[in-house]
Amino acid sequence: MLSGPNLNLLGEREPEVYGHHTLADVEAMVRERAERLGVEVRFVQSNHEGVLVDELHRARLDCHAVVLNPGAFAHTSVALRDAIAAIRIPVVEVHLSNVHAREPFRRRMVLAPVVRGQVVGFGAHSYVLGLEAAVHLARGGRG
Amino acid sequence: MLSGPNLNLLGEREPEVYGHHTLADVEAMVRERAERLGVEVRFVQSNHEGVLVDELHRARLDCHAVVLNPGAFAHTSVALRDAIAAIRIPVVEVHLSNVHAREPFRRRMVLAPVVRGQVVGFGAHSYVLGLEAAVHLARGGRG
Amino acid sequence: MLSGPNLNLLGEREPEVYGHHTLADVEAMVRERAERLGVEVRFVQSNHEGVLVDELHRARLDCHAVVLNPGAFAHTSVALRDAIAAIRIPVVEVHLSNVHAREPFRRRMVLAPVVRGQVVGFGAHSYVLGLEAAVHLARGGRG
Amino acid sequence: MLSGPNLNLLGEREPEVYGHHTLADVEAMVRERAERLGVEVRFVQSNHEGVLVDELHRARLDCHAVVLNPGAFAHTSVALRDAIAAIRIPVVEVHLSNVHAREPFRRRMVLAPVVRGQVVGFGAHSYVLGLEAAVHLARGGRG
Amino acid sequence: MLSGPNLNLLGEREPEVYGHHTLADVEAMVRERAERLGVEVRFVQSNHEGVLVDELHRARLDCHAVVLNPGAFAHTSVALRDAIAAIRIPVVEVHLSNVHAREPFRRRMVLAPVVRGQVVGFGAHSYVLGLEAAVHLARGGRG
Amino acid sequence: MLSGPNLNLLGEREPEVYGHHTLADVEAMVRERAERLGVEVRFVQSNHEGVLVDELHRARLDCHAVVLNPGAFAHTSVALRDAIAAIRIPVVEVHLSNVHAREPFRRRMVLAPVVRGQVVGFGAHSYVLGLEAAVHLARGGRG
Amino acid sequence: MLSGPNLNLLGEREPEVYGHHTLADVEAMVRERAERLGVEVRFVQSNHEGVLVDELHRARLDCHAVVLNPGAFAHTSVALRDAIAAIRIPVVEVHLSNVHAREPFRRRMVLAPVVRGQVVGFGAHSYVLGLEAAVHLARGGRG
Amino acid sequence: MLSGPNLNLLGEREPEVYGHHTLADVEAMVRERAERLGVEVRFVQSNHEGVLVDELHRARLDCHAVVLNPGAFAHTSVALRDAIAAIRIPVVEVHLSNVHAREPFRRRMVLAPVVRGQVVGFGAHSYVLGLEAAVHLARGGRG
Amino acid sequence: MLSGPNLNLLGEREPEVYGHHTLADVEAMVRERAERLGVEVRFVQSNHEGVLVDELHRARLDCHAVVLNPGAFAHTSVALRDAIAAIRIPVVEVHLSNVHAREPFRRRMVLAPVVRGQVVGFGAHSYVLGLEAAVHLARGGRG
Amino acid sequence: MLSGPNLNLLGEREPEVYGHHTLADVEAMVRERAERLGVEVRFVQSNHEGVLVDELHRARLDCHAVVLNPGAFAHTSVALRDAIAAIRIPVVEVHLSNVHAREPFRRRMVLAPVVRGQVVGFGAHSYVLGLEAAVHLARGGRG
Amino acid sequence: MLSGPNLNLLGEREPEVYGHHTLADVEAMVRERAERLGVEVRFVQSNHEGVLVDELHRARLDCHAVVLNPGAFAHTSVALRDAIAAIRIPVVEVHLSNVHAREPFRRRMVLAPVVRGQVVGFGAHSYVLGLEAAVHLARGGRG
Amino acid sequence: MLSGPNLNLLGEREPEVYGHHTLADVEAMVRERAERLGVEVRFVQSNHEGVLVDELHRARLDCHAVVLNPGAFAHTSVALRDAIAAIRIPVVEVHLSNVHAREPFRRRMVLAPVVRGQVVGFGAHSYVLGLEAAVHLARGGRG
Repeated sequence: MLSGPNLNLLGEREPEVYGHHTLADVEAMVRERAERLGVEVRFVQSNHEGVLVDELHRARLDCHAVVLNPGAFAHTSVALRDAIAAIRIPVVEVHLSNVHAREPFRRRMVLAPVVRGQVVGFGAHSYVLGLEAAVHLARGGRG
Repeated sequence: MLSGPNLNLLGEREPEVYGHHTLADVEAMVRERAERLGVEVRFVQSNHEGVLVDELHRARLDCHAVVLNPGAFAHTSVALRDAIAAIRIPVVEVHLSNVHAREPFRRRMVLAPVVRGQVVGFGAHSYVLGLEAAVHLARGGRG
Repeated sequence: MLSGPNLNLLGEREPEVYGHHTLADVEAMVRERAERLGVEVRFVQSNHEGVLVDELHRARLDCHAVVLNPGAFAHTSVALRDAIAAIRIPVVEVHLSNVHAREPFRRRMVLAPVVRGQVVGFGAHSYVLGLEAAVHLARGGRG
Repeated sequence: MLSGPNLNLLGEREPEVYGHHTLADVEAMVRERAERLGVEVRFVQSNHEGVLVDELHRARLDCHAVVLNPGAFAHTSVALRDAIAAIRIPVVEVHLSNVHAREPFRRRMVLAPVVRGQVVGFGAHSYVLGLEAAVHLARGGRG
Repeated sequence: MLSGPNLNLLGEREPEVYGHHTLADVEAMVRERAERLGVEVRFVQSNHEGVLVDELHRARLDCHAVVLNPGAFAHTSVALRDAIAAIRIPVVEVHLSNVHAREPFRRRMVLAPVVRGQVVGFGAHSYVLGLEAAVHLARGGRG
Repeated sequence: MLSGPNLNLLGEREPEVYGHHTLADVEAMVRERAERLGVEVRFVQSNHEGVLVDELHRARLDCHAVVLNPGAFAHTSVALRDAIAAIRIPVVEVHLSNVHAREPFRRRMVLAPVVRGQVVGFGAHSYVLGLEAAVHLARGGRG
Repeated sequence: MLSGPNLNLLGEREPEVYGHHTLADVEAMVRERAERLGVEVRFVQSNHEGVLVDELHRARLDCHAVVLNPGAFAHTSVALRDAIAAIRIPVVEVHLSNVHAREPFRRRMVLAPVVRGQVVGFGAHSYVLGLEAAVHLARGGRG
Repeated sequence: MLSGPNLNLLGEREPEVYGHHTLADVEAMVRERAERLGVEVRFVQSNHEGVLVDELHRARLDCHAVVLNPGAFAHTSVALRDAIAAIRIPVVEVHLSNVHAREPFRRRMVLAPVVRGQVVGFGAHSYVLGLEAAVHLARGGRG
Repeated sequence: MLSGPNLNLLGEREPEVYGHHTLADVEAMVRERAERLGVEVRFVQSNHEGVLVDELHRARLDCHAVVLNPGAFAHTSVALRDAIAAIRIPVVEVHLSNVHAREPFRRRMVLAPVVRGQVVGFGAHSYVLGLEAAVHLARGGRG
Repeated sequence: MLSGPNLNLLGEREPEVYGHHTLADVEAMVRERAERLGVEVRFVQSNHEGVLVDELHRARLDCHAVVLNPGAFAHTSVALRDAIAAIRIPVVEVHLSNVHAREPFRRRMVLAPVVRGQVVGFGAHSYVLGLEAAVHLARGGRG
Repeated sequence: MLSGPNLNLLGEREPEVYGHHTLADVEAMVRERAERLGVEVRFVQSNHEGVLVDELHRARLDCHAVVLNPGAFAHTSVALRDAIAAIRIPVVEVHLSNVHAREPFRRRMVLAPVVRGQVVGFGAHSYVLGLEAAVHLARGGRG
Repeated sequence: MLSGPNLNLLGEREPEVYGHHTLADVEAMVRERAERLGVEVRFVQSNHEGVLVDELHRARLDCHAVVLNPGAFAHTSVALRDAIAAIRIPVVEVHLSNVHAREPFRRRMVLAPVVRGQVVGFGAHSYVLGLEAAVHLARGGRG
């Protein structure tokens, strides 16, 4: 479970957009579902694009799938896009808010063409559904 | 569960894009999950935009949420957009294929700003996750 | 008096945008003015683009003018545009809300170049002024 | 009743577009309807954008509504737009010709988002319907 | 032979653009050529996009090729585009008028990338050449 | 029958796009149909835009119609466009491949607004149908 | 001879762009040529768009042609465009500098479609050639 | 200190955007700072673009710098732009509101490339900082 | 005096656009003025872009200026643009018709930024004025 | 006082654009003014976007305002934009050079809609005025 | 080694952009390197697009690779693009100047998607490196 | 020799696009050529934009030229662009694949206008040619 820039402020930052759950709350919710699904998860958050690229590279060696909330990098980062295309494991993109209902520049989605699928707009629940989708794909389910 | 144009051909139509499940297969998968979640579902498919608008109007009277696969209308129908905005119940948009990885015109999403969220790219499983998201929202979960 | 998609929900749908009058209220207001002007009116509402095209074709045989609130189709329907251009009687386009003050896509007006004129933004009163304009044109007034 | 640039040539200027009524004819038609509606009207025409801004400012002090035919300024004047937004009384925009059926640059409407409504395309009759709309709004009618 | 919206008015509608032949005249001309080519044809015209989608689906079961005059839908309908891509039989697009010589929006051709070929601008004769092209393709000729 | 740049390589050049017929094969097929239609044809191919302009000028003196496969010049040559508009005889534009299904820049058609019609996407058969269309027009048939 | 905004600073303003002649120098050069051509000229310069509109209206009553250097208004003023279209006498547009070789926004020419012709880029000599062109047109020469 | 259209309404006009200070309040604040800085200031406000051009021309003769709040003209006036480029003294552009946070058309800044710098978004304080910047530049400070 | 594609048809080609003078007539008019101005002229017309490039290269060796009517190449030819920039002598661009009043693509002027000036819209007289401008420049007059 | 990429080279890098002051010089100038204003300042410069995001997060805990010179990130960084929107303290954006007078891509300002205001184009003095603006805002002054 | 329009003027034409080497100098430098690499080269320069197409066709019969400096045709010629795609041998595109640092229209590269690679911006040395690249590819090196 | 994001995966990542050489293989090939040319090289690869900026700054102190494969940053990084412009030593941009033949967003080249030249599309050999170009420039060769 990779989270991008400013997600460390979750719960404090613009709660009318992103809700009142902190990233720790999200982690707890996801771990609960992960347990039910019988899978292990690792959590990383970073405000540095380079760290997220490094983490994606690392994941290709020891994970079966990635759930990625790229935050702002969803709209700008070709480096992340190339990293996703470079690794072979499925990547599921999630967003807390409905990015289509916000500023026009958030509708430009740079990563979307190379991820396997997206879950968008269900708050912290987007992570939970994203996990379920990733497990489905990692177990050979068709995307 | 509303499905738009050409989805009646599912399983037969471009299977390399849409998979080999028929709409009946999808319905069975969704009914199974619905039962587990303790909810009832109604299935409608139509190639007529007007019928889908009528069905959304009808749903506002006897449903708690809508899972909508608008097919091609996702990219063109302002009438459906206005219908979604006009009814109060949450609408979740789902797509079988990753529309962002296909022709550029499929990246123009007319309905996205007024639905509550999207599940995109997981084949028939998109419907299942869409159902789960809709139930989450209908039960007061934050989107 | 032709009304397009979602106008059957008038009064219920987003009342802060469209006001509290139902389509029946509008009909009553228009009939009153029609009586004063000494003209007869027929009311049709449909969520189906094809029905509206059919009605425009029918109107060319038994009406002197059409007042059309195309709703969402104002921004998308080349079929309606061609129907308006194909019939000879004057068509007046009306909108309840000021479409120019809303989302940018509502400023793209597909029908506007082939109607005779527009009345925009006066709520239910737009229909009344539209009727007056249509009568003016049908009686040979210059547009 | 404010009229913008070149409207002093009405009746003489491109009559196939604007008709044969002079501005004086229009004024007479409007005064007649104004009398019937029991309202007083003031007429100003100017080719100077600054004068029109000044007049809108003045109108906020001694008028209940403005009917504005901005002519060419409809497509270019942010100064007029700001003036309309700055005053509190309703402004109704009217156009003699159907601007949507002419050159593409006339479809860019700078003032439209801040006026209350538009009457477009009915020749001199646009002023008369514009007056009626303005009176409707000034008397508290919903726009 | 499928014909889209407003083609039922052929011969009456803007004859300077579309000519004086009615759709019945066109049908007669096509039937004559069909006989010479030894093939059977079915004619359907509809103003409803959904009906045309239904007819394309039906054609995949009992026809060897389709000649489609989509009228206005050529420029807007992704639903028809997806229907053409979904069925396997060749589809030939025909237009009576030279759409490239008309309004700019008619140069946006939504269906063109998925049909096998186009015949444009020869009036009723476009249908006849379209039939010949369709027979050529249905008999295994290279497109 | 005028053919533009690179068509001399027909049969050898990208056969998966253009087919295996050489230009000589096409010529034979066209001559056969020409004989059946009772008309004479002249064949010219050139990689030089200027030569094609010269040939169009010459055709105005001794031909009744032109069938033109402009190749790449279809997308760039205003000089050819002006030549077509300058001569009075009908010009029919043909393309072997379905240009709409290829690179986006091939959808920009510079000549299309001034030719009488187009036949696109039927391989060598496009020339044959183009000939038939040209004969139809040259004999006074409506385009 | 009408001159628009900032031309009163000619000779002082950015001389590397506009040259060292003052407007008075230009007037002298033009008067000399006017005398040779046997015509009378009136000179007006204003920084006010409204004054230029008024002057064009006035010119329609007592001039045979107008030479207009609109300065900055060439790129923005629809009001001037409408004034030129409203009067019947020929208008010739002149520019001192080659506007095409400067900032991109100067290549948008709002007046150009309604003037009879342009003389651009010859410094003060543009006025002289503009006068000659205007005389040619006023004497019935073809434009 | 030059102020453009509608700034005479400051304090009354949309106070949630422009604040409650009147232009007289702003003048007092600026005069106080001017005294501290040991400079003299002249205040002009006009709704007429032509007057602002005239004032810029005049300022080149008797001022060392100009602080200009162009209001709406910031987004449209090439005439003002040319006037600023034509005079040699430094011009500082100020805006009360953060224009970047408002309608998209306010992000098009026509004057910005030719002024020396901008102070944007600090309400009446923008004028004070603008004055300070202008004095800095007039005294030879680097911009 | 260089003339581009299709100008050999002058007088015959679309006379409502280009007038009834043939290129020979134009040559006669220009020679007459040339004599009066005491200069010698050479006339070349070609439908081949390459020939025009060759002629510009040749002119740099034995001419003092070029008057160029590029015809369609004005809108497309970067090769001609580079040729004009490569030679040192002044080039004056002329057009018979007012290209700004025609199709939008004719407003894209590829050569304009590198020529010294333009004379546009005065029919055959454009050549005469172009000659005068060229002589002015060749004799050291400022452009 | 946050400074973005390449500002560590200040004084050395393109001095004709950015001036001869080093970042240390700027710091000294700002500290002097800060002392006069009775406020404390912290200086950070980084070429890493992630570090700037981290610093903005940290500033929300121990600063009253931020003066940010984002350098190149002004035009590209949605991550910084989100960070500015996520923290509550006012952020003032400053630029040394007049970015509007440089390459077009520098006119796209990603951060501008979420900062409180901008000071642009006054060299090192931009930092000083930015500090004054920030203090004004931090002390409750209206922006 | 193919060279396009205006390259015959090399050394004389805008030397501050293209350097002082003539095409003959370049040829000498290339021949020297060719000798070292043990390959034979043929040199052709033409200002005619058609000749370059013809030469590419010819090269497919007797060369192993082409080094092409298309000059201006790099930005406009679809005919050359199709010729490159039609022949099987590798084509390397070279440019003397850094086209990305010049006018915006030079950044549109029509040929680039079908050549194997590019060498841009190293003056006459671009030809030498282009030769080396071509030899690398012709000998089966991966591109 | 600077390499950007994801190039550490070379040989493993999408080998059909980037080839089977690892970055270590490339380094070996470059070192061999460097030895032949008598120059020393340093290799740095990073997924962090900030590190690449830091390295460019460092290179200005101890290198004579830089060969930079910016990977994804070629299309997005204004910070790198500014770093290249800020240092004085020549920078040569290299790409393994022909970026022009891939997704449209890869044709937007942010760094290209400030590097000295580019070598694109020759796989690992691009680095070798890039080295040769850099040495040429560092030794005073003209770019």
